[in-house]
Amino acid sequence: MAERYFQHSFPNGLTLLAEKMPGMKSAAMTFLMAAGASTDPVDRCGSATVLSDLILRGAGMRDSRQLTDYLDSLGLQRSSSVGVHDTRLGCAAVSAKVMESLPTYADIVRKPHLPEEGFTAARDLALQSLAGIDDEPRQKLMIKLREWYFPSPYGRNTMGRTEDLEKLTLELCKADWQQRYKAHDAIIAVAGDVDFGQLRSEIERHFASWNGKAAADVNVMPPPGQFHHEHQKSEQTHIGIAYPSIPETHADYYTARLAVEVLSGGMSGRLFTEVREKRGLCYSVWAGYSSLKGSGSIFGYAGTSNERAQATLDCFIGELHRLQKGVTEPEMQRAKIGLKTSTIMQGESTSARAGAIAHDFFMRGRIRTLEEIKDAIEAVTVDKVNAYLKAHEPGPFTIVTVGPKELKLPQ
Amino acid sequence: MAERYFQHSFPNGLTLLAEKMPGMKSAAMTFLMAAGASTDPVDRCGSATVLSDLILRGAGMRDSRQLTDYLDSLGLQRSSSVGVHDTRLGCAAVSAKVMESLPTYADIVRKPHLPEEGFTAARDLALQSLAGIDDEPRQKLMIKLREWYFPSPYGRNTMGRTEDLEKLTLELCKADWQQRYKAHDAIIAVAGDVDFGQLRSEIERHFASWNGKAAADVNVMPPPGQFHHEHQKSEQTHIGIAYPSIPETHADYYTARLAVEVLSGGMSGRLFTEVREKRGLCYSVWAGYSSLKGSGSIFGYAGTSNERAQATLDCFIGELHRLQKGVTEPEMQRAKIGLKTSTIMQGESTSARAGAIAHDFFMRGRIRTLEEIKDAIEAVTVDKVNAYLKAHEPGPFTIVTVGPKELKLPQ
Repeated sequence: MAERYFQHSFPNGLTLLAEKMPGMKSAAMTFLMAAGASTDPVDRCGSATVLSDLILRGAGMRDSRQLTDYLDSLGLQRSSSVGVHDTRLGCAAVSAKVMESLPTYADIVRKPHLPEEGFTAARDLALQSLAGIDDEPRQKLMIKLREWYFPSPYGRNTMGRTEDLEKLTLELCKADWQQRYKAHDAIIAVAGDVDFGQLRSEIERHFASWNGKAAADVNVMPPPGQFHHEHQKSEQTHIGIAYPSIPETHADYYTARLAVEVLSGGMSGRLFTEVREKRGLCYSVWAGYSSLKGSGSIFGYAGTSNERAQATLDCFIGELHRLQKGVTEPEMQRAKIGLKTSTIMQGESTSARAGAIAHDFFMRGRIRTLEEIKDAIEAVTVDKVNAYLKAHEPGPFTIVTVGPKELKLPQ
Repeated sequence: MAERYFQHSFPNGLTLLAEKMPGMKSAAMTFLMAAGASTDPVDRCGSATVLSDLILRGAGMRDSRQLTDYLDSLGLQRSSSVGVHDTRLGCAAVSAKVMESLPTYADIVRKPHLPEEGFTAARDLALQSLAGIDDEPRQKLMIKLREWYFPSPYGRNTMGRTEDLEKLTLELCKADWQQRYKAHDAIIAVAGDVDFGQLRSEIERHFASWNGKAAADVNVMPPPGQFHHEHQKSEQTHIGIAYPSIPETHADYYTARLAVEVLSGGMSGRLFTEVREKRGLCYSVWAGYSSLKGSGSIFGYAGTSNERAQATLDCFIGELHRLQKGVTEPEMQRAKIGLKTSTIMQGESTSARAGAIAHDFFMRGRIRTLEEIKDAIEAVTVDKVNAYLKAHEPGPFTIVTVGPKELKLPQ
């Protein structure tokens, strides 16, 4: 790797990644641990989410208030979230302040206080967020689509399940923390104004004695079915479509990605022009590639008025089938420049790059350089895409709708 | 100005701004024209919004499809939106491609085709977006809050009004385009990898013969009242609060801004810790400074379960009053570093800087350097903030709620 990219694996299984970005004063960190919704304890869906809040309520020598005040005194722009595979902590600030925060992040994951009153508040907030979904039909649709498309537990709502959250206790959270907040397979990625030598010794000092490996005991079950309608009294019908693609580690990955770009990249994408611009069927429509470890999928969405819903679904499915007939050279050129431009723009954001190298390592076990990505996009031709599309009939489709009326499904 | 910032006003009243950002390969453009919702023709609310869509449906030598394809072939990440004061077109891409797009942007604003079928589609989509608000109670709340807080027409919903959109015609849109898409007071701002000499001559070539001034004939009327409840059958109650502050051109601007940061900056902000973390009353709460030309305001929001709504409102108002009693030195330090960090991070984003220098010029008639902003933040002391807060009792409050039940208002 060039002097822009750095990687070091510690004996405990923790991997440190870094990208030195010229001209930046800031740095961003992404911290991944193998505590995702798919490994939430049985019947305790939402445990990782409650825990990701609870660990910030006091750690090391600081109580909840002191910890929050301290992290804000560094000017850190912080985030925390739970995905299918992992719990993700993120921060960005002036580079020196991100460095200064590292011992505290070690406290947060290794020495959280996990206090009783903090647990009650964290669980209450999780329950409230969950109840709030009923007011957000678009978000509700995407949650339901994942539940009906992915084999369980990969389709679980990362926010948890009401009945499980109600039964969650502080003791279960403590046990869960002990089982899943482990060094092995954890990833720390820092991008921006980085001195890798200094970063590595800081991480070594605070994380080298961290140990253990999260047990990943996942019992995979098929999803409940392919079609689901969720009744909701509403002005709009929300339509979600999902079907399998190839994993992002596959040699044809960018071939598949560019095909989806023709469908839904930029404003000249087929879905946007055919469904929205030409036929005025809906105000929001898109499709995109989505990745889990070992599998890739295409997810699509359309939000439309109730009376236009059937025509929108039909038109959407029609475009998915029409894509198989092939794309044109100009469509391909636009798709390629669109994806290359996104890559270049991402190369100017410390947060985007920290997230990207962490994602790369999780998916592939290594960092990809920006040049490698650009070259891979460049190497795809219209012939490759058309051969790929010919060989991969879209489907089987999982279709979920949220609205006042069921729709007629294709065939 | 240093060699980072550039400004040039053309005889027709168009102003070109630029910021050369070292290390960037991309550039971003923000293009503002004095066609905002506040100057939509009487009884034709939403005209600027429909027009901002319609101008992209063919311009110069390209029809709608050709124009979309061409802009995507440059890899432009595009946006368009309508605010209170202006219509805003934005794009970002590799620098050379943004330069290449300039003649086409000249076509879009100066020679749009404004076709009949495009008008029908654009108006339909505007009507659909508007109908969609009923499914988005949070967005609905903020729209209603602006309507009840600002004097008309400054509180208008920029998306328009259903009955007005239904009466809108292509002829009215054409007339509106002729009246408001004018060179005078228009601003083009480009940030990133910029050669100002080249940029200026390109802009001169394509925009120097553009002429005219938008007539700003605004008839100001007081808002309908201070308190409003919008009934909605929903799991949540959404609470919005607004009250006056000083304009951002005021010498005490950063004093006022930092006071709001203490209230709602980072995760140690008082609203977050008191309302959310300590009392678990709601999952989302914030307050922030908001700016129109000549006036500043504080807007606040809380989203909460119906049974916690009254306690949340009371606690929110309580915090607004408590702020007047003063802030502490540590709160002040955190607020300052938070705001300075945001400024530094913004200095690494071409889109953020293009937007910021355009905003600066619109509000102040000049660009502020990042150093000037940092110095202004640095100069604020806890004594200044406390003196300011003592002299400025919060209120009068405009309070709007969306949910199943009215709340008891303060006093």
